[in-house]
Amino acid sequence: MDYEKLYSNNAKKMRSSEIRRLLEISQQPGVISFGGGLPNPNAFPVEEIREIVNKILDEEGTKALQYGPTAGLKDFIELLATFVKQDGIKAGVENILTTVGSQQALDIVGRIFLNENDVVMVGLPTYLGGINAFLAYGAKLVGVPLDENGMRVDLLEEKIKELKNKGENVKLIYTIPTFQNPAGVELSLERRKRMLEIAEEYDLLILEDDPYGKLRFEGEAIPPIKAFDENGHVIYMATFSKILSPGIRLAYVVAPEEIAKKMILAKQSMDLCTSTLTQTIAYHYIKNGYMKNHLPKIIEMYKRKRDIMLQSLEEYFPPGCKWTHPRGGMFLWVELPEYINTVEMFPEAIEKKVAYVTGKSFFVDGGGLNTMRLNFTNAGDDEIKEGIKRLAEVVKKRVK
Amino acid sequence: MDYEKLYSNNAKKMRSSEIRRLLEISQQPGVISFGGGLPNPNAFPVEEIREIVNKILDEEGTKALQYGPTAGLKDFIELLATFVKQDGIKAGVENILTTVGSQQALDIVGRIFLNENDVVMVGLPTYLGGINAFLAYGAKLVGVPLDENGMRVDLLEEKIKELKNKGENVKLIYTIPTFQNPAGVELSLERRKRMLEIAEEYDLLILEDDPYGKLRFEGEAIPPIKAFDENGHVIYMATFSKILSPGIRLAYVVAPEEIAKKMILAKQSMDLCTSTLTQTIAYHYIKNGYMKNHLPKIIEMYKRKRDIMLQSLEEYFPPGCKWTHPRGGMFLWVELPEYINTVEMFPEAIEKKVAYVTGKSFFVDGGGLNTMRLNFTNAGDDEIKEGIKRLAEVVKKRVK
Repeated sequence: MDYEKLYSNNAKKMRSSEIRRLLEISQQPGVISFGGGLPNPNAFPVEEIREIVNKILDEEGTKALQYGPTAGLKDFIELLATFVKQDGIKAGVENILTTVGSQQALDIVGRIFLNENDVVMVGLPTYLGGINAFLAYGAKLVGVPLDENGMRVDLLEEKIKELKNKGENVKLIYTIPTFQNPAGVELSLERRKRMLEIAEEYDLLILEDDPYGKLRFEGEAIPPIKAFDENGHVIYMATFSKILSPGIRLAYVVAPEEIAKKMILAKQSMDLCTSTLTQTIAYHYIKNGYMKNHLPKIIEMYKRKRDIMLQSLEEYFPPGCKWTHPRGGMFLWVELPEYINTVEMFPEAIEKKVAYVTGKSFFVDGGGLNTMRLNFTNAGDDEIKEGIKRLAEVVKKRVK
Repeated sequence: MDYEKLYSNNAKKMRSSEIRRLLEISQQPGVISFGGGLPNPNAFPVEEIREIVNKILDEEGTKALQYGPTAGLKDFIELLATFVKQDGIKAGVENILTTVGSQQALDIVGRIFLNENDVVMVGLPTYLGGINAFLAYGAKLVGVPLDENGMRVDLLEEKIKELKNKGENVKLIYTIPTFQNPAGVELSLERRKRMLEIAEEYDLLILEDDPYGKLRFEGEAIPPIKAFDENGHVIYMATFSKILSPGIRLAYVVAPEEIAKKMILAKQSMDLCTSTLTQTIAYHYIKNGYMKNHLPKIIEMYKRKRDIMLQSLEEYFPPGCKWTHPRGGMFLWVELPEYINTVEMFPEAIEKKVAYVTGKSFFVDGGGLNTMRLNFTNAGDDEIKEGIKRLAEVVKKRVK
C-alpha cells in the first residue's frame, strides 16, 4: 500500500535526525563516545531506588500502579511546589504538572503555542531536542549568539524588534540558562533579569529549561529566571533525568496557572497521565532525603570527569582550539580553528575510535561548522583521557 | 499577561472534558462509582513486580535506569514480536514500537495521519480517548452504529462511499474489536475480515485498538484484524494497563514497517523514549512466566464481578432497560427507555451515591442520550450489588 497520500502535512516534513545516525555510529565497539547526552550509569542511585520501590510496594503498591491525575499525583505535586521554593520559585499546586521527560514538556509547549511560521528565539547554539520539538509544529527558529555569559540579550532584543517590524509572530524565547546544552555556559544574573524585561516589553513567554541546575560543581547558584517572574511570563521546566534516572522519564513544569491548565488539557489527549510508579519513586527520593545524600556523589563524580577532560584538552589539543570551562552540567563546547569542519572530520574520528557531536547540529542558522559538543559524564575516567588524546590526533592533522 | 494572542489554533480549540468533571464528582466520599475505566487495584501483581524490580536492580539496574532507543529496548521489542504471534500477528522488530500507554499511540497516529478536516470512521459509541486524540488534530469523526456483533460493516462501507463521493478525505477506521469500550461487544470474525476488505478497497488504514483482548471470560478467541493483514492496512495497538498496571504507562504498536518508522520519528520529538524501567518490568513479567500465572487471577476476579453486575441488573432494574452481556473486558453498556436522559439523571444518581458515565460522551453524533457505561472491574463485589440497587431506584423513578 502507498501511504504517502494518507500522511499528514506534519508527517511529510519529518526527517530522520542526522545526529541520531551519528550517535548510532558512535556506538560501535571500541569507540570512546563523548557524543550522547547520557548521565553516568554509576551515578544512578540503584540501592536507594531498591529501598524506595520495596517500601512503595509494601505500603501503597495499589496506588502507585493505578492511573493517576493528568497533572500528577497530588502528594508529588505538593512536594514539587516546596522543592522549587529552594530555588526561589513561588508556586502552588495549580502551577505544576508532571511530564514524560522534559521532551514532552517541549512538545506540549509547542502544541499549545505554535502555529506554522510562528517564531521561537533560540540560542546559537541550542538544545537539539528543543529544535526538533518546535520544528514539529512548523515554527521558525531564529538564533541569537551566546558568549561566555550565555545568550546575548542585547542581540536578542534587536532581533525581536526587527522580526516584529517585519510582522513576524514571535511567541517564545527558549533558553537553558544554567550550564547550557550544548555550550555549558551560564546566563548571568543581569542577563536573566534583562531577558525577563524583554519578554514583558514585547509580550512574549520565556521557556526556561533547567535540566542541569542541580549539577553545580563550583560558583554561586544564580536563581532561575522564574524566580523573578512576577507577571506570568516564564514557563519553567526541570527533570529527574540527571539527578535520579532518565529511564524513569519524569520531568515537571512550573507555569502560570492558566498555561498550566492548558498544558494539562493537552496532555490528557497525549498520554492521560505520567507514570504513577515513577512519580512515587521520585517523591520518596526527595521526601526521604535520599536525593540530598546522593546528589553530592553525582556532583563529585562529574566534577572529576570535567577536570580530567579539561586537563586532557590542555595536554593534548593543539594551539588555536578553544573550549568552555563549565561550572556544572554535562557538556563542554569546543571551537576549532575556523577552517576545520567537524562534520567532515567525523568519519576520521570514528576511525580513530572516538566520537563527538558535530556542533552544526545545534545551530539553526547553519553555523557552528568548526565546533563540537563533548559530553564528559558518560565515559570512564581513563576513557576520557584516552578519548581526548585520540581526538587531539585527529584535530592536529588538520591544524595548519 | 493576556495569553490569548499567544495560543496556537490548536490550544484555542481545547475544551475541558465533560467526562473528567463527572468523574471528579464521582470521587466524592461514599459514592459507588461505575464511572472510571479503572482496573481493580487488587488485580495488580504487586508481589511479582517486587520480585522483578529487585532482580532488575541486582542484575541490570544501570541499563533499566538509562535512556533507551525511541522504539523501545531491543530485548523487549523482540519479545513483543513473539508475544503477538500468540494471537496470529506476524511481526518483526521493525514493525514494533512502545508507547506511553495506548493514549500516546492514538496521539502519534493522529499526528502522522490527520490534517484538519480529515475523516476518521468511529463506532457509535466509541472510546472517548480516541475521540479526544483525533479531535486534537482537527479531524472530523463520522460514527457508524454498532450492534451485538460490533460495528455494522455494511453501514461503514455505505458511509465511506458517501463521504468519498462528497470529496471528503477519509483516512482511518478506528475500532476496538474485542470487548469494545464502551459497549462491551465483540466484532465478529466475518465482520473483521469484511472491515479489512473495505480498508483495502478504499485505500484506508484500520487502527485496531486491543486493550482488553487478554481479558476473555468465555467464548472462543477471535483473532485480531491484524492477523489477516497481508497488505499493510492495519495499525494494531495493545497495552499493559489492564494485564499488568496502568501506572507503568506502557503500551505497544504493531504497524507496517514504513508507518512504524514514521511513528518512531514522531515519538522522538514527543518524549525521546518510553520508560526503560517499566519496559524492563513488563519484559520480565512476560518472559519469566509471571503473566501466565497472574492473568487467570485477573480474569477470574473480573468474571465474578461481571456476573454480580449482571445478576444485580436482572434483580433490580425495571423492565424496558437493556444491557450487554460482555464475554470479557471491563464494561457493560446499558440502554434505558428512550425518554430517559442519563445526563439529566446524573445529579440524582450522585445524590443516591452511585455514578456512571453518560453514554452521550461516547457518541460523536450527539446520540446515546438514554445510555450509560458501567465499569464492573473497579468496585468491590458487595459495592457492585449495592450500587446497581441504588442506580435501579434512580432509574425506576423515571420509568413510565
